[in-house]
Amino acid sequence: MAFTLEAEDGPARAGQLTTAHGVVETPVFMPVGTRATVKAVDPRELEQLGAQVILGNTYHLYFRPGAELIEELGGLHRFMGWERTLLTDSGGFQVFSLAETRKIDDDGVTFRSVYDGTLARFTPEVAMAVQASLRSDIAMAFDECAPAGAPRADLERAVERTARWAERCAVAPRPDGQLRFGIVQGGTDGELRARSAGHLTGLPFEGYAIGGLSVGEERELMFDVTSSTAALLPSGRPRYFMGIGDPEGILRVIGAGVDMFDCVLPTRLGRTGSATTWEGRLNLRNARFARDDRPLQEGCACPACTRFSRAYIRHLITQDELLGLRLLTLHNISFLLELCRAARGAILAGRFRSFSEEALDRLGSGTAQTSSGGDAQEAR
Amino acid sequence: MAFTLEAEDGPARAGQLTTAHGVVETPVFMPVGTRATVKAVDPRELEQLGAQVILGNTYHLYFRPGAELIEELGGLHRFMGWERTLLTDSGGFQVFSLAETRKIDDDGVTFRSVYDGTLARFTPEVAMAVQASLRSDIAMAFDECAPAGAPRADLERAVERTARWAERCAVAPRPDGQLRFGIVQGGTDGELRARSAGHLTGLPFEGYAIGGLSVGEERELMFDVTSSTAALLPSGRPRYFMGIGDPEGILRVIGAGVDMFDCVLPTRLGRTGSATTWEGRLNLRNARFARDDRPLQEGCACPACTRFSRAYIRHLITQDELLGLRLLTLHNISFLLELCRAARGAILAGRFRSFSEEALDRLGSGTAQTSSGGDAQEAR
Repeated sequence: MAFTLEAEDGPARAGQLTTAHGVVETPVFMPVGTRATVKAVDPRELEQLGAQVILGNTYHLYFRPGAELIEELGGLHRFMGWERTLLTDSGGFQVFSLAETRKIDDDGVTFRSVYDGTLARFTPEVAMAVQASLRSDIAMAFDECAPAGAPRADLERAVERTARWAERCAVAPRPDGQLRFGIVQGGTDGELRARSAGHLTGLPFEGYAIGGLSVGEERELMFDVTSSTAALLPSGRPRYFMGIGDPEGILRVIGAGVDMFDCVLPTRLGRTGSATTWEGRLNLRNARFARDDRPLQEGCACPACTRFSRAYIRHLITQDELLGLRLLTLHNISFLLELCRAARGAILAGRFRSFSEEALDRLGSGTAQTSSGGDAQEAR
Repeated sequence: MAFTLEAEDGPARAGQLTTAHGVVETPVFMPVGTRATVKAVDPRELEQLGAQVILGNTYHLYFRPGAELIEELGGLHRFMGWERTLLTDSGGFQVFSLAETRKIDDDGVTFRSVYDGTLARFTPEVAMAVQASLRSDIAMAFDECAPAGAPRADLERAVERTARWAERCAVAPRPDGQLRFGIVQGGTDGELRARSAGHLTGLPFEGYAIGGLSVGEERELMFDVTSSTAALLPSGRPRYFMGIGDPEGILRVIGAGVDMFDCVLPTRLGRTGSATTWEGRLNLRNARFARDDRPLQEGCACPACTRFSRAYIRHLITQDELLGLRLLTLHNISFLLELCRAARGAILAGRFRSFSEEALDRLGSGTAQTSSGGDAQEAR
């Protein structure tokens, strides 16, 4: 078994997922490395922050630099210098969200590349073959993700198609040791979620993702659907919520029984000049930080907070100096990883509920500033 | 005495310069940190590469974030998180090269800020006061740098003004432990160089810079003037050539008796996608690197070469990923620092001449690709 459940504390769980590149302690936040790099930082830094898994993206890597090239150079781990666990998404989300014109049929999707407009076609077999070439530790099934607010008929069609495609993904060739996760769809419709979970859990996947959320739906509804969907998934398999990266959201999905989650939010916030802190999101362009000699977050052990002041980082950001983007990105990732480690400790100690309540309380007004998870997943 | 001459090997020298922040072993390349950051890299990385001194820039820091702000936050070292030796230039070069309209009189220069066009005035006293606020370890005198090809009358006027200004700089207040270097001008005119060296060495400076070169003049002439000017400077004081950063140029000015030098070249090359190697300058955008699994430079111990391939760095550069700029910058700085350490070892062993000849030979066709030092100093 790849996954060992170590503790349950209400719906919240702590576990260990063993992959070909190590043991991942859950709950775990996974930084996103879309184009074979977590934007603005390097693999050594991610190791030092304690990142255990990062994501790569099948869609983008398929076009640039190309899956065969990465395979020829020894796979994505070796290509990007990352020695720990690597999860690749199937490219499905990008095919549906980035393409302006796309044609879906029961066999796959035809679309134009965002890079140069050339016509391309993804099928479940293509998505799994690309992920096999990349030699990721965890490959995701190719699914159809309906947009938020889609009519029930569209959601239902996506659920059915996702099931047929999952069957094909489940039998596609894969490299030794690669784990495969299915993705549950169904939007915010409880009946369709149950149907999709039924389809997927009947297939031999090593883990299950909750997809099709964090795409613009109302936030409390998103958490409700997450809870009810997680409860339909086998307890002995890891559960991955696709696309959440604000501290409140992370605490909420952990509380809903989710083990893994990813988001571009910490890296994107870093590149736009913002820091995630216990006092909320700080916009370092703000003049109030010009003479602020404090670190971004008191007590934070990240490479930014242990050496640099808000005043300095503000100077870097306002002068468009690259170091500013990197320091903010490092801090933001570190904040989420530390939050997950603390949540895991609380679950193992049987006190997740009070931990989560205190943390949400401490985040206080800061949480009011966080965007919905939706825009976080959109721009991956 | 701040400077100890350890060895002479022909005109080449090895020494130790003691500042308030440590001992600098010469010859030494000094990365440029114009706006309180060496572009694209961080102070920890520079320490790991073995950088001993970096530069800060009085002109830019005067305007952004302001010298009083940096002083209030404890000085430039603390502000930017750099714990080793820091040299600040006087801002003179930028006042003359960046300003579109400027008015020079015998007391100082009035010009418009490149940041917002506001009128500003630098005098020798202002330049030294700003450097005192920044609390750099080495402050440079405020000089007038005439453009390459200036008529002799202009050069002569700049030499005389530089002398008068140097007298004022030499008696300006300074923080405890700050060293002060004068700058020899005179363009490529031997007689004026000698006159300027005479002026400057008559003043109590702890070191002397050779300024007004690397601004567009013919390259062999630049080396000739460097040799003849260095010979006019006291052997017991460090000699700083302003603005050279290509491997051949560094070897040549060391051979001319220079101890210190700086340049934006390695950082700028990094940000434009190029790597300095023994086989010449590599443009990583070139398709020939797409499947090149080798490091930028075989045997190089820098953070880029020990973990990443040319193919990966090319991918990052072509996809505008920030990590690519950083890896190239780290490699380029590392290459020059390592070259200087090797040159120092050769001087101490009394074999600099053969070392330099072999290195220049090995650089081979690569040196033909290097630009004149001129454009390197221009855009600091």
